[in-house]
Amino acid sequence: MGDVAAVPVIIDCDPGHDDALALLLAVGDPRLRLLGVTTVAGNQTLAKTTSNALKILALAGAVDVPVAAGCDRPLVGELTVAGDIHGESGLDGPDLEVPVGGVADVHGVELMRRLILGCGEPVTLIATGPLTNVALLLRRHPEVAPYVRRVVFMGGSTDRGNTTPYGEFNIVTDPEAADIVLRSGLPVTMIGLNVTHQALATTQIIEEFRGMGTRLGVICADLMTFFASTYRRVFGFEHPPVHDPIAVACVIDPSIIATVAVPVTVELVGAYTRGATVVDLHGRSGAVANADVAVGIEVEAFWRLLMAAVRRVSEV
Amino acid sequence: MGDVAAVPVIIDCDPGHDDALALLLAVGDPRLRLLGVTTVAGNQTLAKTTSNALKILALAGAVDVPVAAGCDRPLVGELTVAGDIHGESGLDGPDLEVPVGGVADVHGVELMRRLILGCGEPVTLIATGPLTNVALLLRRHPEVAPYVRRVVFMGGSTDRGNTTPYGEFNIVTDPEAADIVLRSGLPVTMIGLNVTHQALATTQIIEEFRGMGTRLGVICADLMTFFASTYRRVFGFEHPPVHDPIAVACVIDPSIIATVAVPVTVELVGAYTRGATVVDLHGRSGAVANADVAVGIEVEAFWRLLMAAVRRVSEV
Amino acid sequence: MGDVAAVPVIIDCDPGHDDALALLLAVGDPRLRLLGVTTVAGNQTLAKTTSNALKILALAGAVDVPVAAGCDRPLVGELTVAGDIHGESGLDGPDLEVPVGGVADVHGVELMRRLILGCGEPVTLIATGPLTNVALLLRRHPEVAPYVRRVVFMGGSTDRGNTTPYGEFNIVTDPEAADIVLRSGLPVTMIGLNVTHQALATTQIIEEFRGMGTRLGVICADLMTFFASTYRRVFGFEHPPVHDPIAVACVIDPSIIATVAVPVTVELVGAYTRGATVVDLHGRSGAVANADVAVGIEVEAFWRLLMAAVRRVSEV
Amino acid sequence: MGDVAAVPVIIDCDPGHDDALALLLAVGDPRLRLLGVTTVAGNQTLAKTTSNALKILALAGAVDVPVAAGCDRPLVGELTVAGDIHGESGLDGPDLEVPVGGVADVHGVELMRRLILGCGEPVTLIATGPLTNVALLLRRHPEVAPYVRRVVFMGGSTDRGNTTPYGEFNIVTDPEAADIVLRSGLPVTMIGLNVTHQALATTQIIEEFRGMGTRLGVICADLMTFFASTYRRVFGFEHPPVHDPIAVACVIDPSIIATVAVPVTVELVGAYTRGATVVDLHGRSGAVANADVAVGIEVEAFWRLLMAAVRRVSEV
Repeated sequence: MGDVAAVPVIIDCDPGHDDALALLLAVGDPRLRLLGVTTVAGNQTLAKTTSNALKILALAGAVDVPVAAGCDRPLVGELTVAGDIHGESGLDGPDLEVPVGGVADVHGVELMRRLILGCGEPVTLIATGPLTNVALLLRRHPEVAPYVRRVVFMGGSTDRGNTTPYGEFNIVTDPEAADIVLRSGLPVTMIGLNVTHQALATTQIIEEFRGMGTRLGVICADLMTFFASTYRRVFGFEHPPVHDPIAVACVIDPSIIATVAVPVTVELVGAYTRGATVVDLHGRSGAVANADVAVGIEVEAFWRLLMAAVRRVSEV
Repeated sequence: MGDVAAVPVIIDCDPGHDDALALLLAVGDPRLRLLGVTTVAGNQTLAKTTSNALKILALAGAVDVPVAAGCDRPLVGELTVAGDIHGESGLDGPDLEVPVGGVADVHGVELMRRLILGCGEPVTLIATGPLTNVALLLRRHPEVAPYVRRVVFMGGSTDRGNTTPYGEFNIVTDPEAADIVLRSGLPVTMIGLNVTHQALATTQIIEEFRGMGTRLGVICADLMTFFASTYRRVFGFEHPPVHDPIAVACVIDPSIIATVAVPVTVELVGAYTRGATVVDLHGRSGAVANADVAVGIEVEAFWRLLMAAVRRVSEV
Repeated sequence: MGDVAAVPVIIDCDPGHDDALALLLAVGDPRLRLLGVTTVAGNQTLAKTTSNALKILALAGAVDVPVAAGCDRPLVGELTVAGDIHGESGLDGPDLEVPVGGVADVHGVELMRRLILGCGEPVTLIATGPLTNVALLLRRHPEVAPYVRRVVFMGGSTDRGNTTPYGEFNIVTDPEAADIVLRSGLPVTMIGLNVTHQALATTQIIEEFRGMGTRLGVICADLMTFFASTYRRVFGFEHPPVHDPIAVACVIDPSIIATVAVPVTVELVGAYTRGATVVDLHGRSGAVANADVAVGIEVEAFWRLLMAAVRRVSEV
Repeated sequence: MGDVAAVPVIIDCDPGHDDALALLLAVGDPRLRLLGVTTVAGNQTLAKTTSNALKILALAGAVDVPVAAGCDRPLVGELTVAGDIHGESGLDGPDLEVPVGGVADVHGVELMRRLILGCGEPVTLIATGPLTNVALLLRRHPEVAPYVRRVVFMGGSTDRGNTTPYGEFNIVTDPEAADIVLRSGLPVTMIGLNVTHQALATTQIIEEFRGMGTRLGVICADLMTFFASTYRRVFGFEHPPVHDPIAVACVIDPSIIATVAVPVTVELVGAYTRGATVVDLHGRSGAVANADVAVGIEVEAFWRLLMAAVRRVSEV
């Protein structure tokens, strides 16, 4: 599903409803070459996020994409999952089969290392969960850094958070990991809530999924329907945001995401703000820019990208 | 300029361009009775903010309103003034005379105490600077609390700040004072940047001031013109917000400000977020609501209120 | 009980067993002139510490020493009393009468101000409780600072604490107040646990009190016996330390306390160390010395001083 | 130099003068079987600490002990080395040859993993530098935990620190790593400054090294002489402590170290106390004991142990 000119990517994720769409987009868009998928504890426990990644890849027919389980907890502190948002399974809603294919017999961080060093060209890491695996890769295998083209992560915010008033779930779950990635010196792109909250799975979007006439379309509709119910109950959203595929879309077509190069730090010590991404949009701190931070999105173009990918996957 | 039915208020301020408008509004609107004005270090040093308060009251002909200087520094830590925003004098722009009338020979906190206990009905405190004086009043004279109807302060934000990415100037200047006020058990209303950034002194607004045909109108126009230049340079704003008079307007006519009763805490310990107001809009923390937080404003109605007051003051 | 050459002092305290001995020492030693006593919440609530101060002064025949109640809580945060150490009354053990004389009708901070400004020579403040009143005095009445000769406080430690592993009770109770005092620029002497834990009320000491043949001696013995029981239960001490009178002794006869001039800061933000006094004994921080920190004590000389004072008081 | 009954250990270190003695003790005492040595950045950069480990093992004739370089920086934040204490090379003083033998071609964490899984019995980890490698091992390879008998580390303190007033160098260098180890659930023994400052390399001790009549004895004397000079200059110590070999001695003969099982946490967020080990000796926090903390040492027995090992190594 990729070709020679496609951008080689690894997706590090914790599916999760929105991670599922991110995987489908990565599988379905010909401009990406999905080298592998690694999983991390976050939206649910590692066992569940790994199983969910396998389920989605099986659905997408991407059985040749290697999957490896990474870290089962954040670098520091204890894991708190988001069962209130993603349900008991981490992917509640549709009824998905346990996949036949299995997980690779290496740690996710080791799979990342092998894929990066074996690729032949620099690899883009797309992280849609807590950044634990990416941070551990950078600390344990600093030699891979020159072969990482960039890190694009969904997480953080330039304004409000979702887990706490200023903290977004992925970063709050492992603030130290985010700090390591943001200080790594690698090109880093942050896709935060300030942008992802603009791309909402409206009733029309859900019906478009359902109307595709494929099993995958129905599953996407069911996933978004469940997600809508928890976002309505917990946050009072009329329609749920679909965070993670935007990070993938940003790699496929950078023109649909507006970014600014600014200093970003992670608050590690706040009593109420631990895990907040502190984005200095006006350059008041005098710090050097260390990330490209998304500040805008072409919503309609994004949905066209995603819908096209899901349709393409359905045909396989 | 007040009457029996008017709401008795004390304004605690650090003028400051926007504090100046707040004072004019409080003097000029018949629905308020301005018992006194206390000053605090913030936008500039205490000597300058006190002198500026006297200048504005003299301009407004409110020479019978007692003024007392309060704290010259925050409760904890050192003072950092906002000379980059308000200029060397704290009220750069127009050329204002040094007032004839003087400052009361008591500390601002003592003046507050006397005015509150002597009023005969509960008094509303409107704070448009750091909350140092109000906090000190509550700690030093807890006996006045039953005679304080409510505290309305301009400060904080539900989303981004101005001094730091999540910190607004008044709260960042004295986070402990804000914490004391927000935990006091008094009715507290917070007018934050999320609302004040909606009321901008556009070119049209400035021209309306200038077109009043009064010296005060010209001075207001000059104040806003200076403020516009610093906001453009520092924050890239096309038009500057006028923060402080909104806190006064909220007391005059609560219908123009939408508020929600929610938990608000001040981040005291963050490395990058100290002084952020952490507003739990979605009730995720489980904490009890301790403040009414402004979330919306009828901008046009606000400007009518302010313009009417400035016109009324000009006539005196 | 003082004379012209005696050092004028105010004791700010939260009796407390050891505060009681501090008061007796201040009353009984002719080298001090006790101008007044102010109370603060700490070992027990303000009502109890004030009542206890009155009881001790009545016992000592010091009915002409004015007493005023100060702050009933720390500047920031909530009060936690030390009932486990000082009992329900704050002075459990002996049965003491409720005093006839009453408390002054002014706030403790106001009494301090008046005594300092009215003394005719600079006054030494001896604080044996949380530093709330002293900090509030400095913030509310900065004009008194030139008339304060020095502040000597019992609190903090150069090594371990008692309330937390690195936090001593007085400082942990109001860390911001201690920070204000230590950054005030006034001459400050800190008498910490590192020294007070060397002066223990051994069985022999308690017997010496009891053997004085006076009611006061018996009361002192009973106080120390109760204190011994709680220190044994809570900390496993064989004999209890008598912290507070050492701060008084240090003013009476500086030669019995060895001090070093070093930088001291208060940890305000630690998750486990809030309220620790961070004493840079080896100058590694490069900060400027802001306090004289006690590092040694002539234990025998101290006890002679205290015993003589208690005997002298008994004779009155 | 080990035998079947000897305790299998891995030493993770950052030599460092005192690490050098720790290595010699581990090589020279027949009750230990030194499986391997891993290095970490700390006292000096990773390249230097690795080179120093090789130099010492070569001196000791332990050329068959595998050495691998681990992490070149702490998990979070930047590295600060202790050149003021250990000199430019990390092992200033004697002139030591660059060793012939080389370092293993695997990361230190990987060598640890292999040695632990390949040992056949649970392995004791002795860490005498920052705990970066051990923490990374636990996060990256959680499957080895059941095969780790215990972790004994030199670091922290129950009272004062050395790098900051409450922070010891190894823990301050990587507080998050220490937090991970202390919360790991493994049996952990902490050998802190409170004990290591009791074992001082007095002039007599240094002369005993020098008088051994061997090259190694002279080198040990030179190492301690250099160490004495920096400890005298920086801390004013008359004689320098020899921290690290005490952690090794504790494994060889637990009877010479007194420990208590207590709760220990690492302060991660303090402004002045980050990296302090907070040891709850009196159980006031109510937390569960998670470490055996050294509180006493038989100094003479320790030196006999160390001297015997150095003599035994010299004979090889």
